[in-house]
Amino acid sequence: MSNAKSSFVVAVAGATGAVGREMLKTLEARKFPVSRLVALASKRSAGHKLPWKGGEITIEELGPKSFEGVDIALFSAGASVSREYAPIAAKSGAVVIDNSSAWRMDPECPLVVPEVNMAAAQNRPKGIIANPNCSTIQMVVALKPLHDAARIKHIIVSTYQATSGKGQAAVEDLLQQSRAALEGKAVTPSVFPGQIAFNVLCDWKPGEGDYSEEEWKMVHETHKIMGDDSIGVSPTTVRVPVVNGHSESVHVQFHRPMKADEAKNLLRGAEGVVLMEEAYAPGKHPQPALTSGTDPVYVGRVRDDIAVPGAINMFIVADNLRKGAALNAVQIAERLFR
Amino acid sequence: MSNAKSSFVVAVAGATGAVGREMLKTLEARKFPVSRLVALASKRSAGHKLPWKGGEITIEELGPKSFEGVDIALFSAGASVSREYAPIAAKSGAVVIDNSSAWRMDPECPLVVPEVNMAAAQNRPKGIIANPNCSTIQMVVALKPLHDAARIKHIIVSTYQATSGKGQAAVEDLLQQSRAALEGKAVTPSVFPGQIAFNVLCDWKPGEGDYSEEEWKMVHETHKIMGDDSIGVSPTTVRVPVVNGHSESVHVQFHRPMKADEAKNLLRGAEGVVLMEEAYAPGKHPQPALTSGTDPVYVGRVRDDIAVPGAINMFIVADNLRKGAALNAVQIAERLFR
Repeated sequence: MSNAKSSFVVAVAGATGAVGREMLKTLEARKFPVSRLVALASKRSAGHKLPWKGGEITIEELGPKSFEGVDIALFSAGASVSREYAPIAAKSGAVVIDNSSAWRMDPECPLVVPEVNMAAAQNRPKGIIANPNCSTIQMVVALKPLHDAARIKHIIVSTYQATSGKGQAAVEDLLQQSRAALEGKAVTPSVFPGQIAFNVLCDWKPGEGDYSEEEWKMVHETHKIMGDDSIGVSPTTVRVPVVNGHSESVHVQFHRPMKADEAKNLLRGAEGVVLMEEAYAPGKHPQPALTSGTDPVYVGRVRDDIAVPGAINMFIVADNLRKGAALNAVQIAERLFR
Repeated sequence: MSNAKSSFVVAVAGATGAVGREMLKTLEARKFPVSRLVALASKRSAGHKLPWKGGEITIEELGPKSFEGVDIALFSAGASVSREYAPIAAKSGAVVIDNSSAWRMDPECPLVVPEVNMAAAQNRPKGIIANPNCSTIQMVVALKPLHDAARIKHIIVSTYQATSGKGQAAVEDLLQQSRAALEGKAVTPSVFPGQIAFNVLCDWKPGEGDYSEEEWKMVHETHKIMGDDSIGVSPTTVRVPVVNGHSESVHVQFHRPMKADEAKNLLRGAEGVVLMEEAYAPGKHPQPALTSGTDPVYVGRVRDDIAVPGAINMFIVADNLRKGAALNAVQIAERLFR
């Protein structure tokens, strides 16, 4: 495949999901040079239509022949679909950017956040580039400039994760549960394993030992993206009744002590980051409702830790469907091909 | 005043507030020996009625003569009311247990969590015992047994605080905002400084430096209750769209390293604590919806930190109106007088 092309055939596998829809929107909004868009989904959705460039595009059923002539294949259809079809797409000559967990820890697949480790994307023996988990992406975008300056010793992070990270059906579950609760009716979960409306849940898949699968993703993916397995990562992942936009309360210790002023200076000019210096003003501190539907990683409450000298606390918020998924994937494609 | 009495005249100042109502419910539910209840509130509420022991009690206007003959005065009417009336109540001979922030850091007022430092309540030169802040109470109940065993070096805590901690009007604001959002209408905050429905906010009063007033409460009150100013406390307080029940993600380092198994053994028998050992099972891990309306401090996800050897992570949930306020105050009265 030649990078000399000026426009590209782009396939989106899993086009009807929350991230798939966001991929279409992102390609369009960023004017990615798409000569032809191939929207792929399961048989159930084939023939239906999705909005595309002011008109509509008809969804095709994902199959072994879907990737003929495709230059770039963006996958967000779950790990099992990716395991089956990403190699087929790669063999057909497409560069695959996969948003599932299927290939992230494969040593032959680079795991890429453009602001952090774009160079890694060049070495892709399987033709597959993995897009990291949402909760990891926003954290490493904010922490990379600090790591470069003072080398991170360890990170203690507690998350406030939105329901959209579990898919569109999970968002609908939050909304229907909230309606029932407000009407004084019994709350009957459909997607979540319990009440998420006006509640906080540990709804993750169990992982190794006492940590959830989501928590281990934050550990292993941070190591791989930062290229430094020595960084200690201690995560607590928590689901909150928010539609869209993940928040993270992050404590960071460094090998060389850092003051908040230095951290703020580093973050002020950092790629992909918006530093918000007001802590309390309405509408001026990082929060899901403000940041949902936007591209940057918002960092606020950057302050000297008052218990551990030389450590920094901060609050990181980003749109988990955009920078946490669709936007990051499209940004990888942009840097590879534009 | 004699502890030999078998029943007591109890006044509740601020009886119509979220905590005041919970105080009445708690006195009744725990069969506290009340010979006469005096429900006090502002002029606006005087003459109105509140439920009490199957019937109703008429609210009286709080004034300088309200405490004549009162044995125990429970205050939850805000700091300025407490500053004015708590000394008057104490001078009238009542033991005052005050839920506001007015007296908490006064060296002549003990700050008491019965499970942690009940002995401190005996030394009250002003006749006033302070009830700590909700977010501090649940944390120290869970941490005291661990501190006794291995001495805490520092605590890094991120909170998920419910709207009821800001009063009943804040709960109503969450509910009306949620209704508007679900109907696709504009969200217009009435109590919160911005959208709290389906969002996460930093709505605290600013405190010294870069820490909120709520964060400093957790620092100073932990020192005073634990009787150990050397404990480092690094808090990030966050408001979440939950009606009732605060959650806390807590990382603890000790002077003598501790393993999760030891921590769980210590917590299993700890007073006021319910250890929940399932991490993911629906309905079996600590969460506001399950714990609201109940007395204990629930501790879950107790696990070895994977970044810092010898440190422990845990998730602590309690009803902020009960153990975080009304119940703790009534428990102090019970231990003093029953």
